Amino acid sequence: MVQESSKQALGNATFENYVGLEQGFSEMAYQLSAHVLTLGYAVMLAALFYFILTIKSVAPKYRMSSVLSVVVMVSAFLLLFVQRDNWVEAFTFNQDTGLYMLDPNHAGDLFNNGYRYLNWLIDVPMLLFQILFVVSLKTSSFSSVRNQFWFSGTLMILTGYVGQYYEVTNPVAFFTWGAISTVFFVHILILMRKVIKEGQQGVPDQAAKYLGTIWWIFLISWMLYPGAYLMPYLGLFGEAGVVGRHITYTVADVASKVIYGIFLTLTAQVLSKADGYKDVEFDQVEEPAKG
Amino acid sequence: MVQESSKQALGNATFENYVGLEQGFSEMAYQLSAHVLTLGYAVMLAALFYFILTIKSVAPKYRMSSVLSVVVMVSAFLLLFVQRDNWVEAFTFNQDTGLYMLDPNHAGDLFNNGYRYLNWLIDVPMLLFQILFVVSLKTSSFSSVRNQFWFSGTLMILTGYVGQYYEVTNPVAFFTWGAISTVFFVHILILMRKVIKEGQQGVPDQAAKYLGTIWWIFLISWMLYPGAYLMPYLGLFGEAGVVGRHITYTVADVASKVIYGIFLTLTAQVLSKADGYKDVEFDQVEEPAKG
Repeated sequence: MVQESSKQALGNATFENYVGLEQGFSEMAYQLSAHVLTLGYAVMLAALFYFILTIKSVAPKYRMSSVLSVVVMVSAFLLLFVQRDNWVEAFTFNQDTGLYMLDPNHAGDLFNNGYRYLNWLIDVPMLLFQILFVVSLKTSSFSSVRNQFWFSGTLMILTGYVGQYYEVTNPVAFFTWGAISTVFFVHILILMRKVIKEGQQGVPDQAAKYLGTIWWIFLISWMLYPGAYLMPYLGLFGEAGVVGRHITYTVADVASKVIYGIFLTLTAQVLSKADGYKDVEFDQVEEPAKG
Repeated sequence: MVQESSKQALGNATFENYVGLEQGFSEMAYQLSAHVLTLGYAVMLAALFYFILTIKSVAPKYRMSSVLSVVVMVSAFLLLFVQRDNWVEAFTFNQDTGLYMLDPNHAGDLFNNGYRYLNWLIDVPMLLFQILFVVSLKTSSFSSVRNQFWFSGTLMILTGYVGQYYEVTNPVAFFTWGAISTVFFVHILILMRKVIKEGQQGVPDQAAKYLGTIWWIFLISWMLYPGAYLMPYLGLFGEAGVVGRHITYTVADVASKVIYGIFLTLTAQVLSKADGYKDVEFDQVEEPAKG
């Protein structure tokens, strides 16, 4: 699968580079990757404006959720922009083979998904905190849940970050770090389930329904990340695996950051209305244009 | 440690370049540095939006603290962006060695931390001034403290900036300039301690507690900078020292600029509430979403 000479040449590089050195990428695979990576950061910048412009559609006590969505959009936009740049710089079109390849003489960087991981050091705590500004916890303590989210979120990312360096050269290290990361991930899922269950008590039906949707968005989109981590071992070592990973990460980013944030805004709008908040600028919850 | 031929070739360059010329960086060391440097400027731009969006959560007389945080975020974002670009341009992947190295034929710049130092000429006075807009000085004079902060802050940075050029080639000059810089640093610490002690008098318990936290954030995060300055002499001349310095600077930047600023905002929110300020937009101080 990976030749020994490539292993020596590339060291602890990600499998994208080995594919780029040994097999090369077709025009469609290379361009699709570049386009998907570009779509990712464009969605973040576009959604940034949504979260700023709808901030006053919710009562003041819920607005920190929108502020945290803004923080996530800005950091994700920048990191995904750099990630796309990294892809475009790492591989160049080779007229001898008709493929995009790692240029043996080229003077740039190898491709590495680590920009994503360090971005998550910002985004994961923010995404987990922001729901706490929308739901009312009934039995759990705000600061205890917040601290557990931060602790497990940070350790989940850092252990996964270390593990991804070994995806080609050292499967034992790769799976060990991945397993440690998964322990923290499971802890986060359990906590989030509890937060959402408590949040659904005593709120209007529509808000409870939105929170139920948020749980499924959260569960499914966050499960995509370990899937992308495992991509080289899912029988997809080749350009299908590389393109599949870019698409998986992008779908997961849009769902877990943007769609999740929008549903939290919708939930906060329903709760604001139930609290008697009169929005002077917006009335997005009711059917629009009823005069 | 550093060969004489390298000393002649690189002149007064920082130790990052000597490591890049003589030893090279592994994939993990090089990428981790690039990712951490990218994380640094992404945090600054994300936090910029936090400080803008929460500015009306404090009474008007405290808002200059948020404005100064905004100024710091913008300048730090730009300088850290350039600093990361400098890193990526200085070293390139070498397929013969499987390492990132200073290309002897390449036409780029050497790596230099000086971008950071000149950024601090803006940030250090701003960070020191901003607390003066939150606390009420009891015995000290506002303008006297401000002028002393500016005087010692500026001289601390300039002397450190000169010293860092000698970290490889002239240890006597390196330590002499470092020692002069430290005198101004100690003066700043003493002043800040006094400002915080006075600020804690006669304020609500929660504000006094936040100010106590601010003192520890300030002390620990500012102590990291001389640690990074001394990195080549801490037995870390090699890629561990290079990566360690990037991480140290980034942690210090996030703590001393962003977390420090957030805690000043939280303090100002408590003081605003105690002053009878009714925030029309935010209510971040109380437990969120308790309805």
